[in-house]
Amino acid sequence: MGAIDGSAYLGRLRERQPEIWINGQRITGNICEHQAFKGILTSKAALYDLQLAPEFRELMTYVSPLSGRRVGTSYLEPRSKEDLEKRRKAAQEWAKASGGLMGRSPDYMNTGIMALGTAWDIFDGNESWGSAIKSLYERGRENDLSFSHTFVTPQVNRSLGYFENNGEEPLAAKVIKTTSDGLIIKGARLLATQGGLTDELVVLPVMGNFIEDSSVYAFSIPSSTKNLKFICRESFSYSSSHYNHPLGSRFEEMDTIVVFDSVEVPWERVFLHKDMEVLFNMYNDSSFYSFLLHQTVARQAVKTEFILGIAQLLVDTIQIDSYQHVKEKVSEIIVGYEIMKSLLLASEMEAAPDSRGRMIPSSNSLYAAISTYPKLHARLMEILQLLGASGLITIPAEEDFDSEVGPDLNHYLKGTDCDAKTKIGLFRLAWDISTSAFGGRQTVYERFFFGDPVRISTGIYNGYERQEAKDLVFRLLND
Amino acid sequence: MGAIDGSAYLGRLRERQPEIWINGQRITGNICEHQAFKGILTSKAALYDLQLAPEFRELMTYVSPLSGRRVGTSYLEPRSKEDLEKRRKAAQEWAKASGGLMGRSPDYMNTGIMALGTAWDIFDGNESWGSAIKSLYERGRENDLSFSHTFVTPQVNRSLGYFENNGEEPLAAKVIKTTSDGLIIKGARLLATQGGLTDELVVLPVMGNFIEDSSVYAFSIPSSTKNLKFICRESFSYSSSHYNHPLGSRFEEMDTIVVFDSVEVPWERVFLHKDMEVLFNMYNDSSFYSFLLHQTVARQAVKTEFILGIAQLLVDTIQIDSYQHVKEKVSEIIVGYEIMKSLLLASEMEAAPDSRGRMIPSSNSLYAAISTYPKLHARLMEILQLLGASGLITIPAEEDFDSEVGPDLNHYLKGTDCDAKTKIGLFRLAWDISTSAFGGRQTVYERFFFGDPVRISTGIYNGYERQEAKDLVFRLLND
Amino acid sequence: MGAIDGSAYLGRLRERQPEIWINGQRITGNICEHQAFKGILTSKAALYDLQLAPEFRELMTYVSPLSGRRVGTSYLEPRSKEDLEKRRKAAQEWAKASGGLMGRSPDYMNTGIMALGTAWDIFDGNESWGSAIKSLYERGRENDLSFSHTFVTPQVNRSLGYFENNGEEPLAAKVIKTTSDGLIIKGARLLATQGGLTDELVVLPVMGNFIEDSSVYAFSIPSSTKNLKFICRESFSYSSSHYNHPLGSRFEEMDTIVVFDSVEVPWERVFLHKDMEVLFNMYNDSSFYSFLLHQTVARQAVKTEFILGIAQLLVDTIQIDSYQHVKEKVSEIIVGYEIMKSLLLASEMEAAPDSRGRMIPSSNSLYAAISTYPKLHARLMEILQLLGASGLITIPAEEDFDSEVGPDLNHYLKGTDCDAKTKIGLFRLAWDISTSAFGGRQTVYERFFFGDPVRISTGIYNGYERQEAKDLVFRLLND
Amino acid sequence: MGAIDGSAYLGRLRERQPEIWINGQRITGNICEHQAFKGILTSKAALYDLQLAPEFRELMTYVSPLSGRRVGTSYLEPRSKEDLEKRRKAAQEWAKASGGLMGRSPDYMNTGIMALGTAWDIFDGNESWGSAIKSLYERGRENDLSFSHTFVTPQVNRSLGYFENNGEEPLAAKVIKTTSDGLIIKGARLLATQGGLTDELVVLPVMGNFIEDSSVYAFSIPSSTKNLKFICRESFSYSSSHYNHPLGSRFEEMDTIVVFDSVEVPWERVFLHKDMEVLFNMYNDSSFYSFLLHQTVARQAVKTEFILGIAQLLVDTIQIDSYQHVKEKVSEIIVGYEIMKSLLLASEMEAAPDSRGRMIPSSNSLYAAISTYPKLHARLMEILQLLGASGLITIPAEEDFDSEVGPDLNHYLKGTDCDAKTKIGLFRLAWDISTSAFGGRQTVYERFFFGDPVRISTGIYNGYERQEAKDLVFRLLND
Repeated sequence: MGAIDGSAYLGRLRERQPEIWINGQRITGNICEHQAFKGILTSKAALYDLQLAPEFRELMTYVSPLSGRRVGTSYLEPRSKEDLEKRRKAAQEWAKASGGLMGRSPDYMNTGIMALGTAWDIFDGNESWGSAIKSLYERGRENDLSFSHTFVTPQVNRSLGYFENNGEEPLAAKVIKTTSDGLIIKGARLLATQGGLTDELVVLPVMGNFIEDSSVYAFSIPSSTKNLKFICRESFSYSSSHYNHPLGSRFEEMDTIVVFDSVEVPWERVFLHKDMEVLFNMYNDSSFYSFLLHQTVARQAVKTEFILGIAQLLVDTIQIDSYQHVKEKVSEIIVGYEIMKSLLLASEMEAAPDSRGRMIPSSNSLYAAISTYPKLHARLMEILQLLGASGLITIPAEEDFDSEVGPDLNHYLKGTDCDAKTKIGLFRLAWDISTSAFGGRQTVYERFFFGDPVRISTGIYNGYERQEAKDLVFRLLND
Repeated sequence: MGAIDGSAYLGRLRERQPEIWINGQRITGNICEHQAFKGILTSKAALYDLQLAPEFRELMTYVSPLSGRRVGTSYLEPRSKEDLEKRRKAAQEWAKASGGLMGRSPDYMNTGIMALGTAWDIFDGNESWGSAIKSLYERGRENDLSFSHTFVTPQVNRSLGYFENNGEEPLAAKVIKTTSDGLIIKGARLLATQGGLTDELVVLPVMGNFIEDSSVYAFSIPSSTKNLKFICRESFSYSSSHYNHPLGSRFEEMDTIVVFDSVEVPWERVFLHKDMEVLFNMYNDSSFYSFLLHQTVARQAVKTEFILGIAQLLVDTIQIDSYQHVKEKVSEIIVGYEIMKSLLLASEMEAAPDSRGRMIPSSNSLYAAISTYPKLHARLMEILQLLGASGLITIPAEEDFDSEVGPDLNHYLKGTDCDAKTKIGLFRLAWDISTSAFGGRQTVYERFFFGDPVRISTGIYNGYERQEAKDLVFRLLND
Repeated sequence: MGAIDGSAYLGRLRERQPEIWINGQRITGNICEHQAFKGILTSKAALYDLQLAPEFRELMTYVSPLSGRRVGTSYLEPRSKEDLEKRRKAAQEWAKASGGLMGRSPDYMNTGIMALGTAWDIFDGNESWGSAIKSLYERGRENDLSFSHTFVTPQVNRSLGYFENNGEEPLAAKVIKTTSDGLIIKGARLLATQGGLTDELVVLPVMGNFIEDSSVYAFSIPSSTKNLKFICRESFSYSSSHYNHPLGSRFEEMDTIVVFDSVEVPWERVFLHKDMEVLFNMYNDSSFYSFLLHQTVARQAVKTEFILGIAQLLVDTIQIDSYQHVKEKVSEIIVGYEIMKSLLLASEMEAAPDSRGRMIPSSNSLYAAISTYPKLHARLMEILQLLGASGLITIPAEEDFDSEVGPDLNHYLKGTDCDAKTKIGLFRLAWDISTSAFGGRQTVYERFFFGDPVRISTGIYNGYERQEAKDLVFRLLND
Repeated sequence: MGAIDGSAYLGRLRERQPEIWINGQRITGNICEHQAFKGILTSKAALYDLQLAPEFRELMTYVSPLSGRRVGTSYLEPRSKEDLEKRRKAAQEWAKASGGLMGRSPDYMNTGIMALGTAWDIFDGNESWGSAIKSLYERGRENDLSFSHTFVTPQVNRSLGYFENNGEEPLAAKVIKTTSDGLIIKGARLLATQGGLTDELVVLPVMGNFIEDSSVYAFSIPSSTKNLKFICRESFSYSSSHYNHPLGSRFEEMDTIVVFDSVEVPWERVFLHKDMEVLFNMYNDSSFYSFLLHQTVARQAVKTEFILGIAQLLVDTIQIDSYQHVKEKVSEIIVGYEIMKSLLLASEMEAAPDSRGRMIPSSNSLYAAISTYPKLHARLMEILQLLGASGLITIPAEEDFDSEVGPDLNHYLKGTDCDAKTKIGLFRLAWDISTSAFGGRQTVYERFFFGDPVRISTGIYNGYERQEAKDLVFRLLND
């Protein structure tokens, strides 16, 4: 099969019919027509189409070492800096198609699967785990599967040192039984973005100091597995009009709560159970995070460039660049973009092979990027608001332009060098990224994209090699 | 008549039927039932009811010197610091009823009318202007009229030194003719919040360096005046459910573009035309801004307290105050609240009477407040997002709780000391103020509440007396 | 005796001859002539002169209820808001004489002694403590004594949960023995500012969770007590020229390490020993911190005004206020000043009497101020650097103006409306507050003036009443 | 001759005897023994020694294409990315020897001379300019000359649109006459760092909108040229003790005002006079700024690493990394370091050859770096102050340790794992970089290293290509 196009993706999804609940209703009809989902599904399908388009095929796919078919570049195991560059460029090509707004474009979790699957030796020697992860990787690559995933566990209490009481029904999904067929999972996970909108759901264990055996497991199952439910939050795709909600109507990905109501996971899909050492290695030794960050930072760089484009077009449209503070604000975006781009490039420049011969992007600059972006993104949204000002509030709808008051709007709202409808369309875009409910969710999402910023800081502190820095000081003091 | 209750307010509004357009449609039926307006109208009506409630009547009204009836405190001409205190407390009582989220509660523009009406001498000696503003003040006070207003003019180009070409159809509303009956106004104004939802529309001139005669005018006319149109932006009251959208369903005020399609303004309603000196004095000598700021800062202080309440309840619900950085963030809100409150109190402590015997709150601390709040509010929203985290994304709807998956939600989303529905209700509130489209518009609105922050800074620089500060330096240097 | 003048202060100091070490030398001669101390001593003497000057006498002193003599206002027990106002104005008069740069002007610790002495009942019933603190207060007031003090204990390790090993020689000063005559103290305290430059040294206990008996004590002893040593840091009074170092030459206060080499403290000077309950009450029930903060914030407000004066004079001298960003920066200082002033005034407006009838300034706004100032001050120094730019680096000395190259400097460095020497003098002032070693120490000092900012935040979080804020939210949600 | 060692550098300097004034005195004796200069001269001499040391010789020098001698790498014309890498590494090797604190290490201006000299064609065709710049480059390279330079002109008034009145004696140095021998220059320039401490002084023209002919000139002359005076500011090398002032005693570079008292510049040293087109091209077409920035950012990256080392050693010494906020602050330094390093590396990764075949580092990321560093450096100093706290104030001197109170200090100030003298030495280092007069000057210097931050922002706005960013937006909107 190899890399697929959009209709193949949508076709599989329609067939599967996972159990998805929204607004108190279970989705029963064609999900591709549902107001809450048609935007994101259409946009994802376009990504699949793009990878097969003649001008992108070379970049976006490569020849499978197994089947000889062309498969998606996000599955490529990088053996050289050129491979990393190819992975980056492919990720950015998809990101460009969505202004970097699709946090869970297929390459995100594909990359994770690649990271684990090409380090299958970590899991090996333990029953069938090694072959399970390898086969997951190959299945994903050869069939161009897409994955959603979920890390976050529900907690009634987020204080330090809180533990779930074991006497009760589980909250956080855990293994409540094992059978000869597999694991039985009961409980919930929070925040599976695009939950139910992908072929499979990958469930990965949470790291932490005090984890019980029953929470240590990893597997991937079809979204349509029996007793698996996805409960959606309110949809922010309030309007299907691309004019009114240029982003919400296209890229509202949806976040879901995942309920495992005694879900059975066959042994051949399990690649971790109870083994703490493998748990530790699967995140560290596999370079899982370095690879995910490489894709993430590639996307965030494109997003920053997209935001720069919006800002500059606002400035052009109302001709405000005679104000020094306007130039300063746009410069700040440029600097932010250069920083993200450079941190990304440096991760490749300082990449090094691991023991498996895989080329690992340097995590130092990538962690710096992921620590920078949450604040940067929030500041960029602030800048858009400061530049857009009341223009972000004066946003009549497409329907108004088509009505009796259309001529009024055309006259009174025209731009310096464009008509009113174009100008308002641009301001609606700025509004939708910075100020709408869709935009608000994006801001929160980027703030926590790789976890709590406080924890990221701590991680950087704990993991960073700084002997050389200290040696500079000793050299001076002992001079 | 005197101070009215909510049903009187709504009754007048239904009768009047101003020309309001939304989503390509003119509103024809009962506006109080319209999805986009029923929330705000119900909330405003509740404010009017509150002022007549036995426990608030003393504070919220006073005896009219003209009619002897009890009239609204926002019309009170302050002659002492006690009067200022009464005005502040009344403003805050209304603000508390809406968490400070109604930027255009009736007392806002009532205060402006009071400021101008009690300084009618500025307009006197010029035809009938003095009596026009006086009668506007008295009419407003005795009938408890509500006003919307509009300052902002449309511009195709906001660059320095741009002027509208006079050969074309006017963009910015201007006097295109005068007749024996009055002025004829043609053109548009932007951003009348609650445009059409009040008894009258006050139109005030813009200050600036290069204003033409035809733009210098001031008057108030009924919202239902012929040829006057209000064109709404998209409504952010996406849901009428108080549970789903606790704020948007109640306080979405709506912003409008105002089109004057050759509107005739009778001379007796005009209190300024062409006179540049009166234009200058109407803003400066009347203490117009000081009084508006006193009401505004009173509201913003309450809003800050409301946000503090939300933040603390988030913290309590998920028990995160064992984290030092959480305490630090909540402390930051407390400090912000104390700053806003103190700047407000200091404006009264340092108030001084003007030549008319009116007690004028000190503008120094009020300008400091209005310069501080845009940044503070944005930071408070950021803090709510940082505290709420994924909880602002995991927001199933009221309908979900009532459905088959309700038991799942009740189980998996419960809080430390409250049930899931209460917890999600609280997170929805935090979401609606910080992250929803309603919240986004609030953030933009507060950023520009008293105009462009850059211009406010310049105004402070230009207007502040700092000889004493320099003298401190000379004293030292010459010591 | 009552309030004294400068020569009385200096006379007492010369007589006393405490053991002070600086730069490896013990001071033996006349300390008033010592390069490191003559600046600060002269400046302090000037404060004492000022309080007796005819135009300030009424404000700066009051009639002692005990002796009928006029005594210093910093000793005044406030019984009304007018008393608080008098205390504030007196504190600010002294602050103005030093641009707010003397952190330990005599009124600081006098205020602390007043707070404790007028709440002597806290200490009563415990041996002679009540009368000890009362007599300290009266002795201080009637003789216009000045005090330095010290809170900070040395630690080899500042990590959480570190405790000193008891087997060794004590590091932190503690009671190593009690005799019939009094306590024997051994160990050190850090950071007594102006250590040895005052009549007495007040030693107060540190609060904390795990304090041993031997660390719970409080007393005041003469600076010249036997076996008491003050070890100075490097002096930042590098030049005695008021032109070259306008601030360092006048206000370098010096910080010292205090070594107690088995110092005997007579019982009649002890007002606390071992009693944990009294320890707790002495800080809380006495309103010790509220009073200290009232003096501190009064000083910091003046300092902010002084900085505003410097900034504006820089701007005037080189005529840079045609730049919008320059106006913005100066506005930021104005806003900062208004905030500090308003928080101070609000503490009086919201003051309330305690059970003793003392009028206590509200700590809410004062804590907000002390949480704000460390960041504000640092930002003000940044603004001075940004405004001053290379002018803070091009600073030839007084000696250059008097030399053969004087004419060059006079020609090439002249200001817009002033001669070169005046201009450079002003830039030297800006340099000395923002960029010199003296200024650097001031910045660090203000950052930690009332302790670690993180701990202040925690204190605000823990101590602030916010039920009303939560009630605002409940009112809305239950509406 | 080729690359020299330290004694050659010092020898030339002693011989030359330029006219340097400090503190009202002209330096007459051996400048290497002068308190204000011996530190920096010794440190510079060490750099020259280092380049000839066997382990660095390969990196720090290369074979001159002219003479075949080994000459300094800072003179290397880069023809490949490898050459850029070599230049970077050499710059960083020198930077490491001074913790990045020597802003004007010889490679800075050598790089500028290389940029101009290898683009001599810009100057060619105009009398002898082409050969003048070429010969300057070759003279510098072959003799390992060092250069100071000066851009800044004195102004009595920095307001927009201020021009010097031509009737008076010139302030800004200008050509007052030309003779057959050369130009006669009269007037001053400000802020030649290390003025008089180098072989030659390069004088470059200022760019701007309204420049007169008489200000358009460029040349290099010996520091000891007749009628050329250097007037120093106050020296911040207050102590020669490396213990007391670890940085000031080594790296105080000194800044000078340069007075041209009718200095004659021979024609053969002039490479620009009056030609506006060449003026424009000399900065743009030569990639002058890109090359300077490449050296500068290389240095600033090392400086950031050095600061990281100091911060970590503070943390280690007092064991405060159990505090989360401490980890967060150190992480912030790490992130800042990664950003600077990545921007530097990206400039090489995105380098491209110019028409002369010189490999030009990309200015995009370098301008982002120079826009970032002023704020970053200031924040790093703030972090050091917040980590160091009172430890930056408790700084007894070396002399104290050697005195009678030494045992007290040894006991009371010891660190967790080091003795008191080592600990205080480390805190003194942190103080000297962040809080001393030397440190203050460094902070101001970095704030303005490449000019006014506001102007840098404007430059970035004006020069940045952002069509691709806009195209991303159009692609979406037109989708």
